[in-house]
Amino acid sequence: MKISMAHGAGGEIMQGLISDIILSNIKNKNVNGGIGLGELDDGATIPFGEYEIVISTDSHTVDPIFFPGGDIGKLSITGTVNDVSVMGAKPLAIANAMVISEGFTSEEFEKIIKSMGEACTEAGVALVTGDTKVMEKDKLDKIVISTTGIGIAKKGEITSDASLEVGNKIILTGSVGDHGIALMSYREGFGFETDLKSDVAPVWEMIEKALEIGGVNAMKDPTRGGIANALNELASKSGVGMMVYEDKIPVKEQVIAASEMLGIDPYEVANEGKVVMGVEADKAEEILEAIRSTKYGKDAQIIGEVTDDKHVIIETSLGGKRILEAPIADPVPRVC
Amino acid sequence: MKISMAHGAGGEIMQGLISDIILSNIKNKNVNGGIGLGELDDGATIPFGEYEIVISTDSHTVDPIFFPGGDIGKLSITGTVNDVSVMGAKPLAIANAMVISEGFTSEEFEKIIKSMGEACTEAGVALVTGDTKVMEKDKLDKIVISTTGIGIAKKGEITSDASLEVGNKIILTGSVGDHGIALMSYREGFGFETDLKSDVAPVWEMIEKALEIGGVNAMKDPTRGGIANALNELASKSGVGMMVYEDKIPVKEQVIAASEMLGIDPYEVANEGKVVMGVEADKAEEILEAIRSTKYGKDAQIIGEVTDDKHVIIETSLGGKRILEAPIADPVPRVC
Ligand SMILES: Nc1ncnc2c1ncn2[C@@H]1O[C@H](COP(=O)(O)OP(=O)(O)OP(=O)(O)O)[C@@H](O)[C@H]1O
Ligand SMILES: Nc1ncnc2c1ncn2[C@@H]1O[C@H](COP(=O)(O)OP(=O)(O)OP(=O)(O)O)[C@@H](O)[C@H]1O
Ligand SMILES: [Mg+2]
Ligand SMILES: [Mg+2]
Ligand SMILES: [Mg+2]
Ligand SMILES: [Mg+2]
Ligand SMILES: [Mg+2]
Ligand SMILES: [Mg+2]
Repeated sequence: MKISMAHGAGGEIMQGLISDIILSNIKNKNVNGGIGLGELDDGATIPFGEYEIVISTDSHTVDPIFFPGGDIGKLSITGTVNDVSVMGAKPLAIANAMVISEGFTSEEFEKIIKSMGEACTEAGVALVTGDTKVMEKDKLDKIVISTTGIGIAKKGEITSDASLEVGNKIILTGSVGDHGIALMSYREGFGFETDLKSDVAPVWEMIEKALEIGGVNAMKDPTRGGIANALNELASKSGVGMMVYEDKIPVKEQVIAASEMLGIDPYEVANEGKVVMGVEADKAEEILEAIRSTKYGKDAQIIGEVTDDKHVIIETSLGGKRILEAPIADPVPRVC
Repeated sequence: MKISMAHGAGGEIMQGLISDIILSNIKNKNVNGGIGLGELDDGATIPFGEYEIVISTDSHTVDPIFFPGGDIGKLSITGTVNDVSVMGAKPLAIANAMVISEGFTSEEFEKIIKSMGEACTEAGVALVTGDTKVMEKDKLDKIVISTTGIGIAKKGEITSDASLEVGNKIILTGSVGDHGIALMSYREGFGFETDLKSDVAPVWEMIEKALEIGGVNAMKDPTRGGIANALNELASKSGVGMMVYEDKIPVKEQVIAASEMLGIDPYEVANEGKVVMGVEADKAEEILEAIRSTKYGKDAQIIGEVTDDKHVIIETSLGGKRILEAPIADPVPRVC
């Protein structure tokens, strides 16, 4: 078999590669019974006395490297702190491994580094270590940035993506599709322009406020594969279903317009500053208000609830119901 | 300025890029006063109660990806656990971010993953989390693997690379140049063959034995830039000099022969299973014996001592002295 673009696109085809080749060939999958490779969560944990160390990593290959609302530097820091955050841990430190193409300009490189610095400052993390490699110009296009985040949580505060309970409300912290559609609309050759920007932003403040209230059972950042992927993963790992209401899911007009033009489902497209969480029903309104009081949570919504079905069902504004399937692959290539 | 291959080759040119562009644009460089970006050590530390969490990262772009004695998978795990080890911490967990070229075969991919699994088992670490991206075939050659290692040490056990003291003995745990020269000799077009293998191997067992005895002041794994780079970094960061004796430095015959043919200085070439350490003089013999008792330490030597000079001086077998300069760049491109 040959690796295809879909194997790196965050949907079922990628999951297949990971289960068939990675899970089966790695013996040591966790440390001291912490969350490890076997759980396929947003990151892993290392239990340590009264605490758990959280670690998460992502390579960033986004194309183009500068896009409306951000660049590969901001995305690399933010994407990684967000995966640590949705594990329930405050992100503290970033390790930054960069592979640069020979001939890349130091001006662009510095722009990226500045952007990483600003993103670290906003997220309150330190960039503590890194690595720099260069590949020949015909061997790598531009730059790849692999960031790893470390956070710490008290034991019992870790929020897995597999702990939804029937009756939980599902909160989505804002509009969907902005990152992927902004990227697509900016790429050459699509013949339309919008003022749409990527939503790339750190989510910790929203999560911290929610955790302070309590009753948050499961979280995920709906990156590659969008909310279609995130909702299905949350449901299937928890062995439950969901009912979500289309008219509650915030989608910007420009996202709808561009999606239609491109033939893309915005629910399957990556977001870079959003969280979906399953929370106890009696805490849902209070958590929603807390999230709405934060910088990036103003458009948060309760979009549905957890059911004892096995599917994620979406009810359209006209009252029709359909299954929201897990995508085969994110429809936007090289989205993060 | 345009980024050149030398900017990723571990010597003074890379150091320049890091100081000029990275250090100056990142504000948050450490967590709670731990070792951070400013120290430019093999990794960083996060002080945490009675412990320190150690983190280190490397992207691996080695060419070719399968080479005598190893492959990019083994190298990725081993290189990273070794950087955690030379900080004085037992490596526990690895995060594994992979970027694969479209069209790469799943057979080669599985070979690499198997090799990573074996390397994890040997090093006693778990592969706990990761990421998978795919780039178009004309945008990336083969595969890039970025590994991040996490370890834990008791407070006070961290071994920086800046703490040599005058009078310390310098221990080198085995022969130099094997990795880089094996790679060069295997690459096509060099017109010679040898049975030389990369030395890629985990160094923790040697370090653990040395730390049990005590008196280890500073350590470094002499990867890109070889011992010429490692010895100079140790000396200059500690504000001291060194006297090392050429006839004490183990270099394999095949390495000498191939180096001469290629016009390469084996002292400037990467190793992937070695440590240089500065130890208290009265512990040196005992530490040497302990290291020699381990699987990868049989050829360990005391190669010199720390002086109050500012240079690393090398005394040749004929008694002549010369300065061992820090290399501008590793003479072997894409060595790790
Ligand atoms: N090469 C790999 N090695 C080990 N684990 C992997 C690898 N690729 C993915 N995983 C694991 O598979 C799961 C899914 O990974 P994925 O990258 O989709 O998560 P994510 O980082 O939350 O999403 P995104 O990358 O879209 O931001 C995670 O648990 C991740 O640790
Ligand atoms: N892109 C980067 N961002 C942040 N820090 C970096 C970056 N590149 C290198 N560094 C830092 O510079 C120092 C030297 O890095 P280097 O990669 O040479 O160390 P190493 O990993 O021990 O060696 P090698 O990569 O040859 O195995 C380290 O402290 C590293 O953290
Ligand atoms: Mg995630
Ligand atoms: Mg992620
Ligand atoms: Mg490195
Ligand atoms: Mg090192
Ligand atoms: Mg290294
Ligand atoms: Mg990922």
